[in-house]
Amino acid sequence: MEDDRITLAHGNGGRFMRELIEEVFARHLAHSDLDTEADAVPLSLNGGEPMITTDGFTVQPLEFPGGDIGSLAVHGTTNDLAVAGARPLYLTLNAFIEEGMEIAQLDRIVQSLARTAREIGVKVAAGDTKVLQRGEGGGLYLATTGVGIRIPGTRPAMSNIQAGDIILISGSVGDHGTAVMLAREDFGLRGDLLSDADSVLPLTEAMMASTGLRFMRDPTRGGIASVAHEIARATGMGVRFDATIPVKDQVQAVCDMLGYDPYYLACEGRVLAVVAAEEADAALQAWRSIPSGRDAAIVGRITKDSQRVVLETELGGERFLEELEDDPLPRIC
Amino acid sequence: MEDDRITLAHGNGGRFMRELIEEVFARHLAHSDLDTEADAVPLSLNGGEPMITTDGFTVQPLEFPGGDIGSLAVHGTTNDLAVAGARPLYLTLNAFIEEGMEIAQLDRIVQSLARTAREIGVKVAAGDTKVLQRGEGGGLYLATTGVGIRIPGTRPAMSNIQAGDIILISGSVGDHGTAVMLAREDFGLRGDLLSDADSVLPLTEAMMASTGLRFMRDPTRGGIASVAHEIARATGMGVRFDATIPVKDQVQAVCDMLGYDPYYLACEGRVLAVVAAEEADAALQAWRSIPSGRDAAIVGRITKDSQRVVLETELGGERFLEELEDDPLPRIC
Repeated sequence: MEDDRITLAHGNGGRFMRELIEEVFARHLAHSDLDTEADAVPLSLNGGEPMITTDGFTVQPLEFPGGDIGSLAVHGTTNDLAVAGARPLYLTLNAFIEEGMEIAQLDRIVQSLARTAREIGVKVAAGDTKVLQRGEGGGLYLATTGVGIRIPGTRPAMSNIQAGDIILISGSVGDHGTAVMLAREDFGLRGDLLSDADSVLPLTEAMMASTGLRFMRDPTRGGIASVAHEIARATGMGVRFDATIPVKDQVQAVCDMLGYDPYYLACEGRVLAVVAAEEADAALQAWRSIPSGRDAAIVGRITKDSQRVVLETELGGERFLEELEDDPLPRIC
Repeated sequence: MEDDRITLAHGNGGRFMRELIEEVFARHLAHSDLDTEADAVPLSLNGGEPMITTDGFTVQPLEFPGGDIGSLAVHGTTNDLAVAGARPLYLTLNAFIEEGMEIAQLDRIVQSLARTAREIGVKVAAGDTKVLQRGEGGGLYLATTGVGIRIPGTRPAMSNIQAGDIILISGSVGDHGTAVMLAREDFGLRGDLLSDADSVLPLTEAMMASTGLRFMRDPTRGGIASVAHEIARATGMGVRFDATIPVKDQVQAVCDMLGYDPYYLACEGRVLAVVAAEEADAALQAWRSIPSGRDAAIVGRITKDSQRVVLETELGGERFLEELEDDPLPRIC
């Protein structure tokens, strides 16, 4: 690179773009299957049933305590495969890079993305870069598509959910949203809270062994309250959370200060699972026996209340969790 | 929708986002496989060998003569599968929408994308939307990943190319780049030129029947000159274009006026193919017998000249086509 910042010439199909792809993307993402000169590449699925998902990432700041937009993209996309009962194998990567971005920061992010992909065992099979003119981007946006194969056995889906089923959450809620918020200077707050961004594959694989599993989801944008509303709308039933939802003191303190509700804040490494009542204790123990599930809890149940999402309070009262309307936190994932 | 423009609340995971997805995306993209409530969806490949590609789109203006960013995304992505010798089956779609975008325009673009996908026979299997804050986007950016299955037989690849091979192009070059440029008010030019954006699948399928096929590429960003440089770098050989490259009068006139070179301008519906010399005439006839190949021409050959890309001029001279450095035209695709 002749300069240390991205220019429009890094996006034009010529020499600078080729060098950027070779020196930043291909260098970190190199593996036996990567062929930056091919228009399309073959996937080896070994006869498995393919599943696909896709996700865009716009988090700000691009690097935050516990992660960055690169690791987040890998986690977010592979987690969507995991909660659908699949094992992730491949990713494709689109990078929209704003003119003026520091190449050193881009390099750190791509390196982090590559490391996270290796840890999870997924390969980046194809990629594309575009450069956005200064003032028409937000530093860096990523879009990743994940391909995996279905794990035989249970097919978790909302349509399996029945009244009386139990809701579990694998850990505390709102850590990611709060950690990203604290990392923004405009809030004037500081803290040592880390994002929960992580692979949920150990959690989903443990749960797939349960015959009582109905449905899983990673509660990202809109938090567990929004997942509950999706369940309520899809099933016509209700969701009743009890006062046992794990929320870290720091997260609750920030929410109290800013008027946010942790049940609407994004997690990026948690799973909400719905299981048959008779299997709930076994499922909880299965989660608690692995590190990322040590704070797992039973947090509610599916009711016959038509499409109502209710939270029982510690004092024995209850309140409705309404469907989210205004955006409390843009660019959180 | 309560308003006619995109707001941040359309990206937060709550009610407005759900309504946008239902009323704009799901409505146009509805088909038997689409499940907007699933985290990941299964793909039916019927035992075929899967191939994957991905592409980002930032074209400006979003709607231009002969297409829009929606149809372009489908063509660009399925064309990458086609030139790699695959038949496209599925797409995933990421939309990065800027706050303030007119919902009516978004609706037109998604409708166009859906219509183009139907025409080509691909299904949009998964999608995601993100809203960018005003001043951090360019109206709309799309990222699409395509999955297809390999067409049995020939495996077109740069590594097949041999000295003496013949280069064909399926039609005139630079139409897309020029049409987009003319659609921008800042150039102060007008014209009735249409983008060549189209599916190249009929062209690639015709060429796949040729036993002499070595390699195909759709010359997008950087044009045919950049494809030639990629060939030269990958093979260590040279590329010699002759004076027969088809360029429309209007394209040449705009290039002459603005100091551009049509060989560096993007096409979005053309194929450059490299074929064995003894099969070149048959391949040309195969292309000319289908509507999108009626202007096909033999335009050059692979030489032993080490990594040189040369253009023979009509007057019998020659000039080097250098690797592109400065970006003549940002946001062309």
